[in-house]
Amino acid sequence: MTVAGATRRGAGETVHGRNPATGETLSPAYRYGSAADVADACAAAEDAVDLVRATPTDRRARFLEAVAEHLEALGETVIDRAAAESGLPVVRLTGELGRTTGQLRLFADVVREGSWADAHLDPALPHRTPLPRPDIRRRAVPLGPVAVFGASNFPLAFSVAGGDTASALAAGCPVVVKAHDAHPGTSEYVARAVVAAADATDMPPGVFSLLYGDGPGLGTALATDPRIAAVGFTGSRSAGTALMRAAAGRKVPIPVYAEMSAVNPVFLLPGALTARGAELGRAFVDSLTLGVGQFCTNPGIVVAENGPGLDAFLAAAADAIAATEPAPMLTSAIARNYAAGVEALTTVATEIARGPATDAPNAGRAALFAVDAGTFLSESTLHDEVFGASALVVRCADATETERVARALEGQLTATVHADDSDLPTAGRLLGILERTAGRILFDGWPTGVEVGHAMVHGGPYPATSDGRSTSVGARAMDRFLRPVAYQNVPAELLPSAIADGNPDGIVRRVDGRFTRD
Amino acid sequence: MTVAGATRRGAGETVHGRNPATGETLSPAYRYGSAADVADACAAAEDAVDLVRATPTDRRARFLEAVAEHLEALGETVIDRAAAESGLPVVRLTGELGRTTGQLRLFADVVREGSWADAHLDPALPHRTPLPRPDIRRRAVPLGPVAVFGASNFPLAFSVAGGDTASALAAGCPVVVKAHDAHPGTSEYVARAVVAAADATDMPPGVFSLLYGDGPGLGTALATDPRIAAVGFTGSRSAGTALMRAAAGRKVPIPVYAEMSAVNPVFLLPGALTARGAELGRAFVDSLTLGVGQFCTNPGIVVAENGPGLDAFLAAAADAIAATEPAPMLTSAIARNYAAGVEALTTVATEIARGPATDAPNAGRAALFAVDAGTFLSESTLHDEVFGASALVVRCADATETERVARALEGQLTATVHADDSDLPTAGRLLGILERTAGRILFDGWPTGVEVGHAMVHGGPYPATSDGRSTSVGARAMDRFLRPVAYQNVPAELLPSAIADGNPDGIVRRVDGRFTRD
Repeated sequence: MTVAGATRRGAGETVHGRNPATGETLSPAYRYGSAADVADACAAAEDAVDLVRATPTDRRARFLEAVAEHLEALGETVIDRAAAESGLPVVRLTGELGRTTGQLRLFADVVREGSWADAHLDPALPHRTPLPRPDIRRRAVPLGPVAVFGASNFPLAFSVAGGDTASALAAGCPVVVKAHDAHPGTSEYVARAVVAAADATDMPPGVFSLLYGDGPGLGTALATDPRIAAVGFTGSRSAGTALMRAAAGRKVPIPVYAEMSAVNPVFLLPGALTARGAELGRAFVDSLTLGVGQFCTNPGIVVAENGPGLDAFLAAAADAIAATEPAPMLTSAIARNYAAGVEALTTVATEIARGPATDAPNAGRAALFAVDAGTFLSESTLHDEVFGASALVVRCADATETERVARALEGQLTATVHADDSDLPTAGRLLGILERTAGRILFDGWPTGVEVGHAMVHGGPYPATSDGRSTSVGARAMDRFLRPVAYQNVPAELLPSAIADGNPDGIVRRVDGRFTRD
Repeated sequence: MTVAGATRRGAGETVHGRNPATGETLSPAYRYGSAADVADACAAAEDAVDLVRATPTDRRARFLEAVAEHLEALGETVIDRAAAESGLPVVRLTGELGRTTGQLRLFADVVREGSWADAHLDPALPHRTPLPRPDIRRRAVPLGPVAVFGASNFPLAFSVAGGDTASALAAGCPVVVKAHDAHPGTSEYVARAVVAAADATDMPPGVFSLLYGDGPGLGTALATDPRIAAVGFTGSRSAGTALMRAAAGRKVPIPVYAEMSAVNPVFLLPGALTARGAELGRAFVDSLTLGVGQFCTNPGIVVAENGPGLDAFLAAAADAIAATEPAPMLTSAIARNYAAGVEALTTVATEIARGPATDAPNAGRAALFAVDAGTFLSESTLHDEVFGASALVVRCADATETERVARALEGQLTATVHADDSDLPTAGRLLGILERTAGRILFDGWPTGVEVGHAMVHGGPYPATSDGRSTSVGARAMDRFLRPVAYQNVPAELLPSAIADGNPDGIVRRVDGRFTRD
């Protein structure tokens, strides 16, 4: 563990990395922390709050860039360890490291650009009648220490120095990470990079800590520590909702940003299906099986009208699934849950295809099922995510039934529509429905692959996330860890630079509501 | 009641307006609605969602302006009724009506201005390596039907067509209001104005409903109706936290924006106290007794160092309190709770002054107490709000103790500092502490009086509100009822105008993160 810059060995239960591809136990052993370790990390984070908040934005940006540089310096060391602990291929993890460092650098740019401060100035109107208007300004301040729970499926990009940590640090919040048990060694390497970067850029040591522990014990202690001001989480619906309950039950409730579960529906409209059913079937399986189906944006539901186009789609998808290579899932627990989820589907849906059988440990065999819309609408369990490369095709009689299925879906991270020109009227109606369900709506592509940019929304209504008003990917992920403060008639000498006279930071601000750099 | 434009008489318990100044029961009688009335109002709101959302912004703005015009047309009728039901003076309610209509017009302007749509465009980069970038756009969409629980202390500005309703309608959300029992007749008049305005501007009838009922029954049914997507509330901490629990316990949890309680600390620094202790004492009592102390921003705690300046402050404040005119509180329940809160203070704090005794019904006698900082820090009940014109002076030995008191405070709507030039170093340290506690920090003024503008934050960390990331007053109150959606490669024909090519709405948008009207 790392508590405020110092390496610390826990005294609790022992945890090892395990190679899911071989079943091999990896060295060294890590040990869980205690309630005292949580308290120390949170106290150090609280002690760092004022210093981190007051850090000039350029230094905060350099800290993020330094984390990226130290991660790059680790290079193969961390990639190989992540590959051993996750079973993911080196090429994928190389790309993921690039995504992680790119994300840190995006936040560095965003911190410098300054619009996250949401600076407003409503100048005084001393002669207004019946009452003069005082000088009122507004800016965003960091919430305070943030607890981050890393995900297993992106051991770099959604873990110790992933999007939640990067955006919280960018917002000026100290971070305490609970390492995911599936990659303790990767977590240690990444934590070292963060600590070295904090050191190199003079950030206070309490700005970052890494703890090992189980969710119900150490995780709950962390989320309910009175010094923690917000939680970022990526993982299962059960763990995410447990955190939501814990946070709501605190003396002072705090926001929880939990990204939990989604089936990411794909709508194949008749024109598109007729024109390229087989091609869509092959491309769909590529998306379905990416990362052994372990993407939060994995397409788990396909909605389409019956007809020759759908038949061609299903035939091509079945062939593609039969040709997939068996690959290990991230952990044996995930592999077991996946097998159970697929098994449950066989009792209510028609099996269309399965990936090749294998004796390899923890393999996640791709699976495709079909069911008619009536059954789908009446069986709520069919709406649940099966984490892995399993998908369910919902066969509809017509556009009306397609829309009925769309309206019945729970909150989603993404919704995808494949449409030709002839499908546009239907697609327009669907868009209106999906805008109420999903955080991202995409046409003529596949939901896996989440661009890290300014416009991205990786979020969506419950249960996709705990808070559909936010995104966990992209520049605006910072907003989750900020809150507004108004400053009325505050003396010029005391005003923070973001809202000071003369705009010393040179940022975009709103003066009487108008955007300006004046 | 008004359900989707139609007047409906409840079949439940009877409720009457009551004049707190006279104890007189007012006609007519109103009757509580049932679970079926809640369901009908919510179903109508849900039916209206797509239409309201699709309304062109100019028509939505005209709807808000029409509400303001219809309220002005009611004029004295609604003011007199509100005066009879609240005991508040006509001059105050005339001002409050102006605030209410001004707020509606501000939101109309904001709706037209368009930056609430938070439009982003990250154009496609087809030649980017290793992977092309898709076209990604983003805008804000309304959450869906909003339940609004009006407050008793502002029967116009924070009630049926107050800030929550105005901002939710501005965001494109249908609204179902639970009327406050303290002003059923005022609520009926205002609802008629909203319905007439919806009619005149072709809004669907489901855009607005008004229900009568009790909090635990009808209120809970409303907040937990599956069609309700968010809650706006102003009232007590117990009722607000009950709504938070109800919302968190839903199958699909929803955001609750509850403005609940605050003691709005005022820090009198030594330089300011020495220079004008007596003047500050008189001005403080003016703020404390405004609206018989029934403002959410009422200053309930004064923190100051012992010395001649504080003595002068206390002497002048005591004289001013002795000279106050007795006035009725809003309801007999509020008057009883206030008397009990004051009574409890007498057991732990020193009474400095009381307003004149009176036999008038429901009178709220102003009260000023003092306590040393050590007692304040150890007695958590002293941190609680006593709703009404009661304040507690916390006597500190020095600046260190003042800062300790500041750090011990719960979340607040406001924090006020009175400082002279000699106080600036202390004031700067205090500012850093208060930024973590309060939604608005003001210098050399008084917290009562909340400007409705762009920069205003009327919010603050729990328990001041349930969600310190938001404001319930000012242009940005709309943000509470919106969430972001990303549009990836959506065909140009289907893109909403806020993010369409060529910027047809002419609004400020962010292209690759840069603000532009291009």
